[in-house]
Amino acid sequence: MPLTRKSPAVEKIFVGDLPKYMGKRVVVHGWVVVLRRSKALRFLVIRDRTGTVQTVHRGAADAVDIDVISPESAVRVTGLVREGASARFGRVEIEVEAIEVLAWAQAPLPLDQNAEPDMRLDHRYLDLRSRARGFIFEIQTTLEAAIREFVLARGFVEIHTPKITAGGSESGAAVFEMPYFGQTACLVQSPQFYMQLAMAAGFDRVFEVGPVFRAEASVTNRHATEFTCIDVEMSWIDSHEDLMHLEEGLLRHALSVVREIHGADIERYYGVEIEALDSEIPRIPISFAHELLDRSAAEASSRLTHRAEQMLSKYAQEQYGHSFVFITDYPAADRPFYTMEEDAGPGSGQLTRSRSFDLLWRGIEVTSGCQREHRYDRLRAQAMKAGLESDTLARYLDTYYLDMFRYGCPPHGGFGIGLNRLLMTLLAQQSIRETSFVFRGPGRFVP
Amino acid sequence: MPLTRKSPAVEKIFVGDLPKYMGKRVVVHGWVVVLRRSKALRFLVIRDRTGTVQTVHRGAADAVDIDVISPESAVRVTGLVREGASARFGRVEIEVEAIEVLAWAQAPLPLDQNAEPDMRLDHRYLDLRSRARGFIFEIQTTLEAAIREFVLARGFVEIHTPKITAGGSESGAAVFEMPYFGQTACLVQSPQFYMQLAMAAGFDRVFEVGPVFRAEASVTNRHATEFTCIDVEMSWIDSHEDLMHLEEGLLRHALSVVREIHGADIERYYGVEIEALDSEIPRIPISFAHELLDRSAAEASSRLTHRAEQMLSKYAQEQYGHSFVFITDYPAADRPFYTMEEDAGPGSGQLTRSRSFDLLWRGIEVTSGCQREHRYDRLRAQAMKAGLESDTLARYLDTYYLDMFRYGCPPHGGFGIGLNRLLMTLLAQQSIRETSFVFRGPGRFVP
Repeated sequence: MPLTRKSPAVEKIFVGDLPKYMGKRVVVHGWVVVLRRSKALRFLVIRDRTGTVQTVHRGAADAVDIDVISPESAVRVTGLVREGASARFGRVEIEVEAIEVLAWAQAPLPLDQNAEPDMRLDHRYLDLRSRARGFIFEIQTTLEAAIREFVLARGFVEIHTPKITAGGSESGAAVFEMPYFGQTACLVQSPQFYMQLAMAAGFDRVFEVGPVFRAEASVTNRHATEFTCIDVEMSWIDSHEDLMHLEEGLLRHALSVVREIHGADIERYYGVEIEALDSEIPRIPISFAHELLDRSAAEASSRLTHRAEQMLSKYAQEQYGHSFVFITDYPAADRPFYTMEEDAGPGSGQLTRSRSFDLLWRGIEVTSGCQREHRYDRLRAQAMKAGLESDTLARYLDTYYLDMFRYGCPPHGGFGIGLNRLLMTLLAQQSIRETSFVFRGPGRFVP
Repeated sequence: MPLTRKSPAVEKIFVGDLPKYMGKRVVVHGWVVVLRRSKALRFLVIRDRTGTVQTVHRGAADAVDIDVISPESAVRVTGLVREGASARFGRVEIEVEAIEVLAWAQAPLPLDQNAEPDMRLDHRYLDLRSRARGFIFEIQTTLEAAIREFVLARGFVEIHTPKITAGGSESGAAVFEMPYFGQTACLVQSPQFYMQLAMAAGFDRVFEVGPVFRAEASVTNRHATEFTCIDVEMSWIDSHEDLMHLEEGLLRHALSVVREIHGADIERYYGVEIEALDSEIPRIPISFAHELLDRSAAEASSRLTHRAEQMLSKYAQEQYGHSFVFITDYPAADRPFYTMEEDAGPGSGQLTRSRSFDLLWRGIEVTSGCQREHRYDRLRAQAMKAGLESDTLARYLDTYYLDMFRYGCPPHGGFGIGLNRLLMTLLAQQSIRETSFVFRGPGRFVP
């Protein structure tokens, strides 16, 4: 056996890092984009998550029959990093020493750029290979990490609340039910009850990033039956103003981090500029909002329709130059029973206002929040007024929900940010389907 | 109206930060632990998440009838921070200027230190006010943040996979089913399928922290029907060794951060020292494990029982001085069909080994992982061999699962860490109930 020296370990790197390895031997992994041939050479363009590179292959130096390699096959390439011969394929290229197909792609592919939406969702693993589509989840990662950084720095505790529950939301509508060891349980529509449990337990300030479930049959570009919610809950607040202030700071930080890390690529891929959010988000009380809407168009309902949300965003943009706007102080009658009501002035003929808000961004509601009523007697009275005593949830409410407020539950409140909607707006996507890793809607629970 | 000057804004602070505010006026919020009286003074001990402080109250200077205040009421105290008069109540105390009861606690409390486990779970919001119980979730927050820091620094993408799914796990057992718009869906037992989808989509490396669901009726101290799993999946690995190496680094980092931040308090509250994990985790191939078990006790099954896990941990502690141990290379027949098999040597009479591992810590399995088979033909053959072609899952498997491997799915693998079990072991807790914010088991889906 000849005396051989083991070759030095070759570093596995990302394509995006190639310029740092000029003149070195490296290993890259990726998918075959295209193969071009000349008489003596083969040019194989390889793509990974971080970029594409042209590899140059001389002759038939190894076992793989390079001429029959199919697009989207997964390959490992070992070679020398050198300056690119053609400007068209980037500043660097790899002179191939060895190439290995780790997984062949069958041909033809079941998907192309013009595939129907349902086809795309059925083959999401191929759909996401498109850089613009997969990149969304790297941005999501940065956005979430920045939000966590902000709340962790302020002493928030991250909790994981149960998704299987007995009930306890304000209404039985739009809940997924399931058999649970001979009883009927349901999936949470919001972790709010459990965030409040944490407040009653003295956790002071908590957050959760997790799934919520809505059994709504509505098919719009912004609804899903399962989506990711970022919920924040905080004790000892004076009013919902504290919550809006917190959320504003959180978004300011998160957007600035996303802008710094991905701003240029986001403009390139999606044609949108990330805002600095350096001025205060305007606040419009709902009563004034209705005056505006009456002036511009008849809006019958006291709740905002999607069209009304779009008009209010437009107004905030024109009046304050701001794409965000808080709509505040909804009438108590329009909000869930647990919302704290303002003490009505003496003899006031006005509807009772509540300490509540929504946050609109470019016409889409991305957040709903409020100060919760934490005083047992008032909360109980509000539940009664809302007719919950005759509800099937009454027993649960009385035993588990109201109970929490008997033994020194601090004043508190919170809000939930719909992560998929936030991303949708951030990246100017047409549908929440694009910003859900694997979308769930009525009738769609595969793959 | 007299000319008044608005008092300077008073800072709201945590009790734990009081020593930094000596001589200053502050606001603290918390719960009443105990009230003591002398003729002219009232001493109220207040507790928040960060500590307890004695407040000293002279006379009846404000509206609250302090003498009737009940334990666990939530209060706001404004006062001057000064040196404590008695060593027993800490170095600082607050001389009260104003005190306000924000929420009265009814008496008697429904829970005391000796309450039965079920009572404690029913009133979890009071149970968690015990410092030793609530602190677990601050430690969880630190642990998770450290794990995230480790994987984010290595380019991992954080994803949120659907919890409602059609099926696709290796077996129909222990799955929660639910009606879904006229069809039957189920809750995921593991996000693995979707982690693999991310690999097929070219995400390269992903992680998720989220709920998983097991409809198991088993009532032990380590089982729950819903728990939090940290799942990690990585492409272009050479074998399961790469995964064990990754997990070892991840745990080393996470434990060192937890030790640094909470080490002293963890020893104080739970009597356990956090290990440095500075030596390599020993690896025991399952074939050798069985020899050990045969020697020490008869173990019929080729799968490890909980007792066998405890014995192997004991062995690793004695032989290698290590509380962690990887059990590796399970026979393919004992692992799910998607596990990659080692190519059997020619004429080998041995069982086919698989590229799989479990991680035991102090006798408890906290992780299971493997390299997955990524080559379509082999994976299909393994599914057939496992009898899945006649399973009700066959159609789903064929349409959605196997499909992902047809078009250049890279070699990959991953592992899942049960967060609640990891915390249970870390803090030497008797049951996973203590390390679940709100526990879910057979028959328990409230509160």
